[in-house]
Amino acid sequence: MIIKPTLLLDETKCKANIAFMADKAKIHNVELRPHFKTHQSLEIGRWFKDAGVTKITVSSLDMANYFATAWNDITVAFPINILEIETINDLASRITLNLLIESKTSLKFLEKHLKHSVNFYIKINIGNNRAGLLHYDSESIDALLEISKNSTKLNFIGFLGHAGQTYKCRSKSDIISVHEEAKKKLVNLKNQYVTNYPNIIASYGDTPSCSVAENFEGIDEIRPGNYAFYDMMQVQIGSCKVNDIAVALECPIVAIHPKQSEVVIYGGGIHLSKDRMEDSNFGTIYGNVAQKTSNGWNDIIANTYVRGISQEHGIVKAPESNLANYKVGDTLLVLPVHSCMTADLMKRYKTLEDVEITMMINR
Amino acid sequence: MIIKPTLLLDETKCKANIAFMADKAKIHNVELRPHFKTHQSLEIGRWFKDAGVTKITVSSLDMANYFATAWNDITVAFPINILEIETINDLASRITLNLLIESKTSLKFLEKHLKHSVNFYIKINIGNNRAGLLHYDSESIDALLEISKNSTKLNFIGFLGHAGQTYKCRSKSDIISVHEEAKKKLVNLKNQYVTNYPNIIASYGDTPSCSVAENFEGIDEIRPGNYAFYDMMQVQIGSCKVNDIAVALECPIVAIHPKQSEVVIYGGGIHLSKDRMEDSNFGTIYGNVAQKTSNGWNDIIANTYVRGISQEHGIVKAPESNLANYKVGDTLLVLPVHSCMTADLMKRYKTLEDVEITMMINR
Repeated sequence: MIIKPTLLLDETKCKANIAFMADKAKIHNVELRPHFKTHQSLEIGRWFKDAGVTKITVSSLDMANYFATAWNDITVAFPINILEIETINDLASRITLNLLIESKTSLKFLEKHLKHSVNFYIKINIGNNRAGLLHYDSESIDALLEISKNSTKLNFIGFLGHAGQTYKCRSKSDIISVHEEAKKKLVNLKNQYVTNYPNIIASYGDTPSCSVAENFEGIDEIRPGNYAFYDMMQVQIGSCKVNDIAVALECPIVAIHPKQSEVVIYGGGIHLSKDRMEDSNFGTIYGNVAQKTSNGWNDIIANTYVRGISQEHGIVKAPESNLANYKVGDTLLVLPVHSCMTADLMKRYKTLEDVEITMMINR
Repeated sequence: MIIKPTLLLDETKCKANIAFMADKAKIHNVELRPHFKTHQSLEIGRWFKDAGVTKITVSSLDMANYFATAWNDITVAFPINILEIETINDLASRITLNLLIESKTSLKFLEKHLKHSVNFYIKINIGNNRAGLLHYDSESIDALLEISKNSTKLNFIGFLGHAGQTYKCRSKSDIISVHEEAKKKLVNLKNQYVTNYPNIIASYGDTPSCSVAENFEGIDEIRPGNYAFYDMMQVQIGSCKVNDIAVALECPIVAIHPKQSEVVIYGGGIHLSKDRMEDSNFGTIYGNVAQKTSNGWNDIIANTYVRGISQEHGIVKAPESNLANYKVGDTLLVLPVHSCMTADLMKRYKTLEDVEITMMINR
């Protein structure tokens, strides 16, 4: 029995997602280095270990620090923030720390201030246009390698790209075509440098590609993260089915508005985040509503969605004919648009077996 | 010197905002019951006390609980969540607790389970279409008053409305016209019931109206909250000027992309929130960038804005001619789109005098 917005975790679905990707990586002979920014939990991390995962990805040094008690090979998939050099040195003394480099300033700074050796990938923009050097920018790449070539502390391990542009896809075939193009950019780059650097790898990411694609030729490592939970955005992209989604926000119902055919829930932007998606029928939505069962949830309820959220309020649009199913003092389940952001806000999970699972609190 | 995304608070600007609204309430002879969901801090709360404030508004029972150590008259401006009856009873035993009612189910439940008396407002939808009974729905209002009329624990204190539709305004004159219409709905309702309930009040909210309007006739109490900090959205609405904004997120610069004329910052959706606004020149933006000074910040920098954010990344678009002003390892300041959401995420402030200010952590 919950009394406040609570993030439910379906352990069975989550473990099935973890197993799916572990198996897929084995079949394709790529190393799976999952991104842990989605769940941010040591306990859920153990489920990955049970599936054979030995290396992980995180998105901040704080997160690396949190996971360093249990994992000894961690990639921080974010252009390194040199202001945190003390944390970098501390981590580098304890684990195999892999950093992302795209700037000469950062690399020179590290060379000067590192007390222990680290590995680094060169971060490549393979089409997402967020971070990284442009994939054809050999001049900048060479300038970085010039800095590191005689270093005893900076070990170049390869090229890392994230094909985040798959988030704009809306079908499996879309995803595959974006994936092929992005992959080619990264693999070509690796092939260009592998003669001089025979041990380098191509590290590739994103949940849509890794969920759907079946050709990873030339890729050595994949870093999907969201797939552990999936969410409504991933359903829309074409990465998964609704039944694969492993988290739902259970929200108290605080008012029913029959004239507007709406239900007001305690569950807003500070719980779900303000992440949104465009529904082809309903415009901007902030989540779908799933059918509660005695143990978890079934499919989403047709024509029922979170049409607006503010700090603590969520407004659910529901067909008039279904309104009688909702009662003040009862709860309903929202399948989030973006599970990573919802988890980050909620800071804990409750399994369907009523067990609380903690996660990293500070950042 | 900061090393990670840090929410800076300009105490002088914040105190000036607090004083502005306190003075305005006095001039218009309305009670100021500011909404504390914006800052969520006992320490900042004391600045309101120094300005003569004695009653406050919050958005959850958890927040009421946090502030109950220092404030003895608290309104929870959210349709009451009866699942939290234990917290309600605990708070009602300690402070004057004012609840929002809009459902018969909730009111009957309270009548049955309350151990101490509480005040309640009837929540009215005065045009925002989020929560509340429709302002012309006398039938539902009467049904609620029928339940409470013989109660010794339920004390009806008036009507409460939030003209949140002012957030769609884009000028002062827009705000005033929306304000006049919304106010009329609330005041008319009070006038309709005041003969039978002579002590009831009209409680009215929202930062845009309260910042800009000069006619509060018939209103007894105002509940603005965001004005303590303001933000870029309030600038766009017409509630304030950029120089009134009292918070800025200081973000490490982690990469510069001259070809795209972009700066990558450590500062994303888990810091700023995914709240966004439409800029007439640049489309969807997630914040503006302000000019750092030796002690705080000046105006926003022209044609410079956060064009995209993901979990930890922010991508700042800047004119090519300004790119030389940004350096990896330095920081820049983002004025948030929505300061309430940013504060809620950041969980602490750092004043320009380098003092850390804590806020409520749990919800």
